Amino acid sequence: MINPNTTAAMTEVIATAARSVARSDAEIVAVTSAFGPASIESHVDEAMAVPGLLGAISANPDADGYLVACFGDPGLDAARELAHAPVLGIAEAAMHLAAPLGRGFSVVTTLQRTIGRAADLVSHYGFDRQCRGIHACEIPVLDLDTNPDTADILAKACREALATDQSDAIVLGCAGMADLAAELSADLGAPVIDGVAAGVGMLSAMAAMGLHTGTASGEFATPPPKEYRGLPPELDPR
Amino acid sequence: MINPNTTAAMTEVIATAARSVARSDAEIVAVTSAFGPASIESHVDEAMAVPGLLGAISANPDADGYLVACFGDPGLDAARELAHAPVLGIAEAAMHLAAPLGRGFSVVTTLQRTIGRAADLVSHYGFDRQCRGIHACEIPVLDLDTNPDTADILAKACREALATDQSDAIVLGCAGMADLAAELSADLGAPVIDGVAAGVGMLSAMAAMGLHTGTASGEFATPPPKEYRGLPPELDPR
Amino acid sequence: MINPNTTAAMTEVIATAARSVARSDAEIVAVTSAFGPASIESHVDEAMAVPGLLGAISANPDADGYLVACFGDPGLDAARELAHAPVLGIAEAAMHLAAPLGRGFSVVTTLQRTIGRAADLVSHYGFDRQCRGIHACEIPVLDLDTNPDTADILAKACREALATDQSDAIVLGCAGMADLAAELSADLGAPVIDGVAAGVGMLSAMAAMGLHTGTASGEFATPPPKEYRGLPPELDPR
Amino acid sequence: MINPNTTAAMTEVIATAARSVARSDAEIVAVTSAFGPASIESHVDEAMAVPGLLGAISANPDADGYLVACFGDPGLDAARELAHAPVLGIAEAAMHLAAPLGRGFSVVTTLQRTIGRAADLVSHYGFDRQCRGIHACEIPVLDLDTNPDTADILAKACREALATDQSDAIVLGCAGMADLAAELSADLGAPVIDGVAAGVGMLSAMAAMGLHTGTASGEFATPPPKEYRGLPPELDPR
Amino acid sequence: MINPNTTAAMTEVIATAARSVARSDAEIVAVTSAFGPASIESHVDEAMAVPGLLGAISANPDADGYLVACFGDPGLDAARELAHAPVLGIAEAAMHLAAPLGRGFSVVTTLQRTIGRAADLVSHYGFDRQCRGIHACEIPVLDLDTNPDTADILAKACREALATDQSDAIVLGCAGMADLAAELSADLGAPVIDGVAAGVGMLSAMAAMGLHTGTASGEFATPPPKEYRGLPPELDPR
Amino acid sequence: MINPNTTAAMTEVIATAARSVARSDAEIVAVTSAFGPASIESHVDEAMAVPGLLGAISANPDADGYLVACFGDPGLDAARELAHAPVLGIAEAAMHLAAPLGRGFSVVTTLQRTIGRAADLVSHYGFDRQCRGIHACEIPVLDLDTNPDTADILAKACREALATDQSDAIVLGCAGMADLAAELSADLGAPVIDGVAAGVGMLSAMAAMGLHTGTASGEFATPPPKEYRGLPPELDPR
Repeated sequence: MINPNTTAAMTEVIATAARSVARSDAEIVAVTSAFGPASIESHVDEAMAVPGLLGAISANPDADGYLVACFGDPGLDAARELAHAPVLGIAEAAMHLAAPLGRGFSVVTTLQRTIGRAADLVSHYGFDRQCRGIHACEIPVLDLDTNPDTADILAKACREALATDQSDAIVLGCAGMADLAAELSADLGAPVIDGVAAGVGMLSAMAAMGLHTGTASGEFATPPPKEYRGLPPELDPR
Repeated sequence: MINPNTTAAMTEVIATAARSVARSDAEIVAVTSAFGPASIESHVDEAMAVPGLLGAISANPDADGYLVACFGDPGLDAARELAHAPVLGIAEAAMHLAAPLGRGFSVVTTLQRTIGRAADLVSHYGFDRQCRGIHACEIPVLDLDTNPDTADILAKACREALATDQSDAIVLGCAGMADLAAELSADLGAPVIDGVAAGVGMLSAMAAMGLHTGTASGEFATPPPKEYRGLPPELDPR
Repeated sequence: MINPNTTAAMTEVIATAARSVARSDAEIVAVTSAFGPASIESHVDEAMAVPGLLGAISANPDADGYLVACFGDPGLDAARELAHAPVLGIAEAAMHLAAPLGRGFSVVTTLQRTIGRAADLVSHYGFDRQCRGIHACEIPVLDLDTNPDTADILAKACREALATDQSDAIVLGCAGMADLAAELSADLGAPVIDGVAAGVGMLSAMAAMGLHTGTASGEFATPPPKEYRGLPPELDPR
Repeated sequence: MINPNTTAAMTEVIATAARSVARSDAEIVAVTSAFGPASIESHVDEAMAVPGLLGAISANPDADGYLVACFGDPGLDAARELAHAPVLGIAEAAMHLAAPLGRGFSVVTTLQRTIGRAADLVSHYGFDRQCRGIHACEIPVLDLDTNPDTADILAKACREALATDQSDAIVLGCAGMADLAAELSADLGAPVIDGVAAGVGMLSAMAAMGLHTGTASGEFATPPPKEYRGLPPELDPR
Repeated sequence: MINPNTTAAMTEVIATAARSVARSDAEIVAVTSAFGPASIESHVDEAMAVPGLLGAISANPDADGYLVACFGDPGLDAARELAHAPVLGIAEAAMHLAAPLGRGFSVVTTLQRTIGRAADLVSHYGFDRQCRGIHACEIPVLDLDTNPDTADILAKACREALATDQSDAIVLGCAGMADLAAELSADLGAPVIDGVAAGVGMLSAMAAMGLHTGTASGEFATPPPKEYRGLPPELDPR
Repeated sequence: MINPNTTAAMTEVIATAARSVARSDAEIVAVTSAFGPASIESHVDEAMAVPGLLGAISANPDADGYLVACFGDPGLDAARELAHAPVLGIAEAAMHLAAPLGRGFSVVTTLQRTIGRAADLVSHYGFDRQCRGIHACEIPVLDLDTNPDTADILAKACREALATDQSDAIVLGCAGMADLAAELSADLGAPVIDGVAAGVGMLSAMAAMGLHTGTASGEFATPPPKEYRGLPPELDPR
């Protein structure tokens, strides 16, 4: 499990959420990226987080699965070239688990400006019909933990999303909300899917089945060797 | 786990596959439908299997998840109205796990005449882009177990599918192929996804997260009471 | 014309609507299903209605066309395997006639919980662009006939649908509304399409052209023989 | 029924096909356009045929339905503004009847260069999933009648289309093929849909139901008055 | 640049807008159609404008590109058969330039009744995801110039469109609005795309690259010779 | 114009192609990225090229438009947050110019493994219908210039693509092919679109119209300030 931002406190929140749902025989290794933004709230942040994320994957070559714990799902295709084991993003995992739980789901995320990226992911994964709306609660990522009203604001946003979108489930749009899923679900009487737990569950399923990323079409085969110029050696993912 | 056909031998194959991937703390209850066709190879078979399937769900109200072990995913929406716990079909589960394992997947199923139903499911779940082809091996469901060439014929069909479709993974299109996934995967060097194992994995993830089918939009709330005429009482799912 | 629920009074409403639009040389045989729910208002009802529907088709092998008079269009693909003549559902027929009558149409149906099924049918038939909204009037199927305000409530729902959806036509979402189409159309000044009449018209066109369901791809060929276990013999559609 | 090209002999073929399927109480008025190309085999031909087509509709204001007998479905939206009664194109009508007759249909048309227009219509009407291929037989429109090999060439093209596309039905892509549908259907053992007959059938259904083009959204209301400059008065459709 | 309506004053507005963005080495020839409606505000107007438009293209065979200056993009495919150089419509050009300028754009057009045509074009060009709404300001085409409140009404409509649609850019839905783009853009603080300027820019790019309409598939090759009956010779585009 | 790989020789090829189509009043500034891979042929290469690309944009804040000269269109959304002027990728620009030049286009690119990324871009930009195939010529990026058979191999691949896909135009799938477009076009008799020239043309059009990336929805507004940890200061794009 890789937190692609560089805030170790957030990694702790995520790791706890992950461990609470893991199989008893699963070991969760939580890694904080060594390079990049303190939180990911823009396309620039996301782009700048990817080298650190790829480095963290290269540094941990023996995992049975990799979970990228940021709802923008940064760098997944690149990570799949580097890792033999499966790689999931938390938006991807959450949507795959949410789709079978009803007619449609709503996403409730942090800032308005991240809605576009979430919409791209919805289309990319094939959930245009199932995802009925993406809503912002306007709490910045690093304030989720400290804002005393986070739970209330989120519950209100979720409730409105269910009603407006006529949806059956909520997908939480940030890894930093992982610890709130159970409470929100009880409060709303509706399934609330946290991508961190969803990702741990899906990767556990894949690991139990011995699955890995396929390379038959060549796209996800090991990339050809390449000279990387101007980058500090510690940033080279190979 | 419900085998919606009435062939107990096939339930055994499926249950073994399910147990081989289950968490140590999971109990797999495998149920053979009491009413309906010996195997499901047509739309008529599928329709006639649903009452028995719904009966089996009503008779087992306390499961943490229900897996419908037929690749046509019969009766899922009806099952979701009856069960509180999540319900998955094996086509649905297999496709959700296959999608993140590469650029695209191919389905290899039994008879040509079932391709239409599989294509409907692909579109319904949102995998039109990821599913690159559906191929028949022309072995009837109940012959999978007894035909000595099943493994070879399937391997050939899978290999051709990967090449023709430029895909990265194979989804097996019948619960009766569950025992062949590992061998095929090793043979092909590509991930081969059996929906039975995939369904057990996804339901385990959902159960660990405390998720259930959402009822906020009303569609999957308990159905209104209704008089059922002409049906033997043992067929009434309520 | 098969009413797949078991309420004979509703069959009468439907048959009258069918006969009012039929060609003078057409004979309308109206059949009430012998097995199943008194009305169809849930996925469970729909699933439990299909065996009776298939039985009714098998019992009437010589029709020139079959109309399934329930807006959920249950069992169409299975019916197509059993019948040589064309098979239509009333949702299918209504949408095919509504699409060429303007830029878009709205569906006005009975209960909110049936909207999901209607939306599935819209997508399945290819009318995602033409269908601009699906609205519930919250009158249960069997109350349509007895509620003195049915006509007013429906007219109000239709008027709001036309305005909200900027659509040009209304599709009525229940066979039990068949007798109200003409009055509603005059009231609204907009085309109101009842699927029963639409189905009779489309099947008449197909019959005059000598058309039947195609079997070239194999999907709708006669299903392979199959042992049906546990079912009372009168439920076996073959 | 309007033949939008100016070849009266072709109008005869079409009218005969139309009358052979019409209700006994239906009167078929077949009109040949007074202005435009002798046959329609290009976008230019199609554009130049529309003024004559609109004129023919204005000259016959009392029909209960209008069928535009050219597979490019020229001028339908404009015709809908001018006519109160419903307007159908033969491609539109054929596809609406073909869709419920199987999993998918293939179009067999005249010249390769018309395939693009047919593909646009398929998408516009919503049949991207049902239409599995569009094939040219390379016989020009006006040679269909005189080429002694037309029937054989078409039969071969249809047979190949069914096999290649794995489809269940054939849609004939030219009004000039109307007289060949029955023979082809018998020959192929598959439903062959001629749009002229399909259109007569659908318009008969609409007429029996009292349906007309809807004007609620305003798009198909009578167009605002407009000065037409430079056109000979006989070309002004109003 | 061809104004397909017959109002020369509007051609002047358009030509001025075109010249203000043209390369210094570009010559803009602005042609008013000789035949057809004074303005294009219905499907009938559009259909009746095409012969004159095609005539104008045939009369100017040596241009390096053709811009059809009406937002309904009439006759583009026919024009492409006649012209060797590229042909663009102003809706097409505006949408191609608007798409890369943000997450989504809104169209603000003249009359409500033209929204349907604009929506068809959006889908045809592939911008269903990027175009988030189409809005009418209810000013008729020929009043844009004379109504003293045009600028204010448009600004209000654009502002509401940006907010309602959560879009980043505005596409103006009429050639007659070409002179207002700069002022509106300054007023709104958002990019406002006029299709006339967009078309000049895209055609200049194509001309500099030596591009022309492709004919490899045969669809846009010179149309086969054809007898045109009943039309005055000056209307024959060949 | 930014070459996001670090090979200056390739920047020269691209700059020459750009200048050959630029307006006389346009100044082309060609920048080679200071950090990253020597060529971009994998998802990892692409991800590792983005920080250098963003740095190059920040270092050149006064351009009237930015062209990212790699067919994977890396980092566009991030670049749009940093730049006030419009930003285009060469795949994006090429597809926007290719779409109006015929019924469909084919992409001919370098390595098979890059096809998946190109397909993602096609869908993202809305060209699923227009793009009929993506083909690899299997020449690595840095060999395009030195392989004596590049022109022949490409011509053969283009010719096969036009025939197989029934397309009308070719889009070249690598900036390193920019110098071959004219020769290929003459050879094939079909339009061949190089994204570098296309991008220069589209950005010139946008600049002449005074257009910039819209920020009304907030997505492309200047990103919130953020602490970047562990990265060398010269890699921080702000």
